[in-house]
Amino acid sequence: MLAESNYGKSGIRLVKVSRHGDRHEIHDLTVAIALEGEFVEAHVLGDNSAVLPTDTMKNTVYVLARRHPMESIESFALALSEHFLGESAAASAVRIEISQHLWERLPMGSGGHPHAFRRPGGETRTTRVERTRQSVEVRSGIEGLTILKSARSAFRGFLRNEFTTLAETNDRIFATRLAALWRFGGGDVSYSLLARAVRATLLETFADHASASVQHTLHAMGEAVLDRHPEVDEIRLSMPNKHHILADLARFGVDNPNEVFVATEEPYGLIEATLRRARS
Amino acid sequence: MLAESNYGKSGIRLVKVSRHGDRHEIHDLTVAIALEGEFVEAHVLGDNSAVLPTDTMKNTVYVLARRHPMESIESFALALSEHFLGESAAASAVRIEISQHLWERLPMGSGGHPHAFRRPGGETRTTRVERTRQSVEVRSGIEGLTILKSARSAFRGFLRNEFTTLAETNDRIFATRLAALWRFGGGDVSYSLLARAVRATLLETFADHASASVQHTLHAMGEAVLDRHPEVDEIRLSMPNKHHILADLARFGVDNPNEVFVATEEPYGLIEATLRRARS
Amino acid sequence: MLAESNYGKSGIRLVKVSRHGDRHEIHDLTVAIALEGEFVEAHVLGDNSAVLPTDTMKNTVYVLARRHPMESIESFALALSEHFLGESAAASAVRIEISQHLWERLPMGSGGHPHAFRRPGGETRTTRVERTRQSVEVRSGIEGLTILKSARSAFRGFLRNEFTTLAETNDRIFATRLAALWRFGGGDVSYSLLARAVRATLLETFADHASASVQHTLHAMGEAVLDRHPEVDEIRLSMPNKHHILADLARFGVDNPNEVFVATEEPYGLIEATLRRARS
Amino acid sequence: MLAESNYGKSGIRLVKVSRHGDRHEIHDLTVAIALEGEFVEAHVLGDNSAVLPTDTMKNTVYVLARRHPMESIESFALALSEHFLGESAAASAVRIEISQHLWERLPMGSGGHPHAFRRPGGETRTTRVERTRQSVEVRSGIEGLTILKSARSAFRGFLRNEFTTLAETNDRIFATRLAALWRFGGGDVSYSLLARAVRATLLETFADHASASVQHTLHAMGEAVLDRHPEVDEIRLSMPNKHHILADLARFGVDNPNEVFVATEEPYGLIEATLRRARS
Repeated sequence: MLAESNYGKSGIRLVKVSRHGDRHEIHDLTVAIALEGEFVEAHVLGDNSAVLPTDTMKNTVYVLARRHPMESIESFALALSEHFLGESAAASAVRIEISQHLWERLPMGSGGHPHAFRRPGGETRTTRVERTRQSVEVRSGIEGLTILKSARSAFRGFLRNEFTTLAETNDRIFATRLAALWRFGGGDVSYSLLARAVRATLLETFADHASASVQHTLHAMGEAVLDRHPEVDEIRLSMPNKHHILADLARFGVDNPNEVFVATEEPYGLIEATLRRARS
Repeated sequence: MLAESNYGKSGIRLVKVSRHGDRHEIHDLTVAIALEGEFVEAHVLGDNSAVLPTDTMKNTVYVLARRHPMESIESFALALSEHFLGESAAASAVRIEISQHLWERLPMGSGGHPHAFRRPGGETRTTRVERTRQSVEVRSGIEGLTILKSARSAFRGFLRNEFTTLAETNDRIFATRLAALWRFGGGDVSYSLLARAVRATLLETFADHASASVQHTLHAMGEAVLDRHPEVDEIRLSMPNKHHILADLARFGVDNPNEVFVATEEPYGLIEATLRRARS
Repeated sequence: MLAESNYGKSGIRLVKVSRHGDRHEIHDLTVAIALEGEFVEAHVLGDNSAVLPTDTMKNTVYVLARRHPMESIESFALALSEHFLGESAAASAVRIEISQHLWERLPMGSGGHPHAFRRPGGETRTTRVERTRQSVEVRSGIEGLTILKSARSAFRGFLRNEFTTLAETNDRIFATRLAALWRFGGGDVSYSLLARAVRATLLETFADHASASVQHTLHAMGEAVLDRHPEVDEIRLSMPNKHHILADLARFGVDNPNEVFVATEEPYGLIEATLRRARS
Repeated sequence: MLAESNYGKSGIRLVKVSRHGDRHEIHDLTVAIALEGEFVEAHVLGDNSAVLPTDTMKNTVYVLARRHPMESIESFALALSEHFLGESAAASAVRIEISQHLWERLPMGSGGHPHAFRRPGGETRTTRVERTRQSVEVRSGIEGLTILKSARSAFRGFLRNEFTTLAETNDRIFATRLAALWRFGGGDVSYSLLARAVRATLLETFADHASASVQHTLHAMGEAVLDRHPEVDEIRLSMPNKHHILADLARFGVDNPNEVFVATEEPYGLIEATLRRARS
């Protein structure tokens, strides 16, 4: 009757300061651990002898953070996944998710201030590692990357029915809060470098694409990532359409040549797709 | 290369007032529509001729809300799913999600005030309908139901390792923000009545269970639903553990016999499972 | 040059379980402490000898919560304010703010379940105590009380200018998220009883008032409190207008006799006023 | 009995695209309008003849945004304040608050992309203009500027009592989410330039100050603004202390030389002060 189950600790908040002489580096992470497996005795009988408490998971994350060089969140997630699968004989799989909150150096001196930082907010770097006794899968991603283009975005020629009121347009604001998650095909990868490169590809394509729709640009962005980054064999993109509606000023005898927009939160379009490298 | 895609409108906010003489009823809903299918021309070529705009979806929801009697969110979601699959030849499937925000009558007069209401906040009633050209699946659920028991909750006998610091306890606070989603096996169902009954079963079991762990109580709650409600053939439960940590007052020479707790948000345990009726 | 300053601890989260045999009571509070005064040495010289750390404030709240009977949040806030003014010779005033998160017993057995509770969410009971070396002022309040009436609300005869597009209406939805804070004139008061009574007066007046505007109903609500509750000598009400806009279905040849509304979050009207008892 | 009242529209969301050939500029604003004054007939009698609807305020903001060059949010707020005081004979004062959500050009080409942008999130530029029939006051500010320094921050020598458990430290993480609001003494001011300069002064002082406490650094930051920017005659700073607690790894035989921290949200210290230029 117990078809699936998982348990773990979420929202483990961790800041590690790495010191290179006077120059400090900040790693600011939110970590989530989840174990899957045969925990039938725990569920059915209340026998906890196979249950590693989530409190212990939390303690462990801080200890392993002290030991780990933090060259990437992916490598830290890999280390955590290996550790927890080792500690829990009953678990068949473990999933580690890490979000990295970015900090920029304050712009003082050459190369930025050695130990003072600003957190821009919004965007996070993410990873998701899924490890079983047989395999491990690493994904990297981005969340909360809010972007907007005020040119090269149209939407027309769409399907019409009795409830259509939307006007066709050759020139609209295209704004989204991008989330992306890509999977690696295997082999050694420099995760942090690659994450920067994939992000640059996504942004460039978004900026320059002659967009006929969100779907059209989303697809071009995913395709560009698969084209330019052979290490990536699958990418999922989620692009909510943050609508900007042209303010109707004609009611007041005032023109509005695509200049003043009402920014709205709800409702919002939501466009999502997964692109996968074709096997040859 | 396009492995999966879906698009639609989310966050459609709708209030319908139904008047029975002077006595009003309020339906306060958030609706999300998602179409899945072969939208390759839209993605690859920017050809929108098969794309029903999400703006049209929004308009449609309001029109259909006017026509629909709203006896349950499930029946409204079924009507929406049928409509949208009919309107989009390119879609192979449609998913409708509705959250209902509850309003209670102000407690005046017998049976409450006829047209003045209070929104308690927090808890919502939910449904998810997934319809393909061949089949339809209806799920009902609850989100944001925050509950707490201050007795009959223990956690001991758990797996220990070098990073264990958690004390065993026979008496702790057990608090969670329950989300549940159950699937119907088929046949005619009175969705609103059944949702109330499943909710009552979940709450009763939570309250009275001699809990050895969150897993243990979650399982008992799911099992009770499958036992008492034959219409349900699967239920998924998600129970974050909202930790309440006994305040350490011994440092100040003050005793604390399970009385004063520090309520925390992060980190939190997250326990999830799906229970499915065994096929006989 | 230092014109004003205050410091303290906010967001102290505390749950106290009071046991009366098998029957438990829950007090779930968020507490904030702020000291005001002459902390010039701390600000200018970095001399902390007069600074009671906010960490100590936090510890103190938990200890005093153990000792205090919690018959009302006002009495607990009074006790805290007295304690902290005593502990900080440099403070000229202290402000204590407490929000109480309400829990209802699960509806099982007569009088509800003895130790299982549901948190409805949304609404909180509040208090603000301001104590100087000479005086103390107690306020009680409500926050997050979301209410709606679907009849007896009009808005017409308003000032018009070249940018007016709003239609006059005799029948609209009036929804708000009420915040109220009232001050006591002095004398002994049973705070919890009075808070319940003031809340009932606010709700009754809201429900039954023939509303010509938010201002009109807000004023009637405040006036009713001053009329019925002589202990209160001032009340501040804040009533954001949570707009519900009639869905325009005429575009589709569908009528909409005040039935289907678009619920919006932004922008929102905000109407606030303070009513004070006239001195005779 | 009506002691104070104000009403208006909040959360007016507006994006203006200014085009200089192919090069676009984005102004993304949230505007709030509040009128104060003698609206006794509206409150007491429900007579709306002096009430400018908040819906009209919203329309007006979009029209005036079309006409206004948007060289600064302060100048736009000044224009709005003048307009609304002119439109409402019954108002004695008007308050305009604007938050500007920052967008950065995507880093492509020299000087950034001409029409593609990223919104970093978190930080906003703010203004508050208060205008009566006799006077006008302009404030500028910053909100949500999250900053952290991992060196040059101590906290010791503080007041101790029976509930003190905090350890003294010469080296802690100092993180805050800065809000600042400064007032101008009068005279012509280039608001946008000055806002950039004040922000730079705040950040520099934060980064380099040998901090003995949050109060100490807050004061140094405010003092530096008053010293370097004669146009400013008052500044209010609000600095919540986002606590980072050294993870206790000694329990596991692991050292932790100020490297791994638990980042916490609640509770938090809150330190606020206003510095005003001494009149000579």
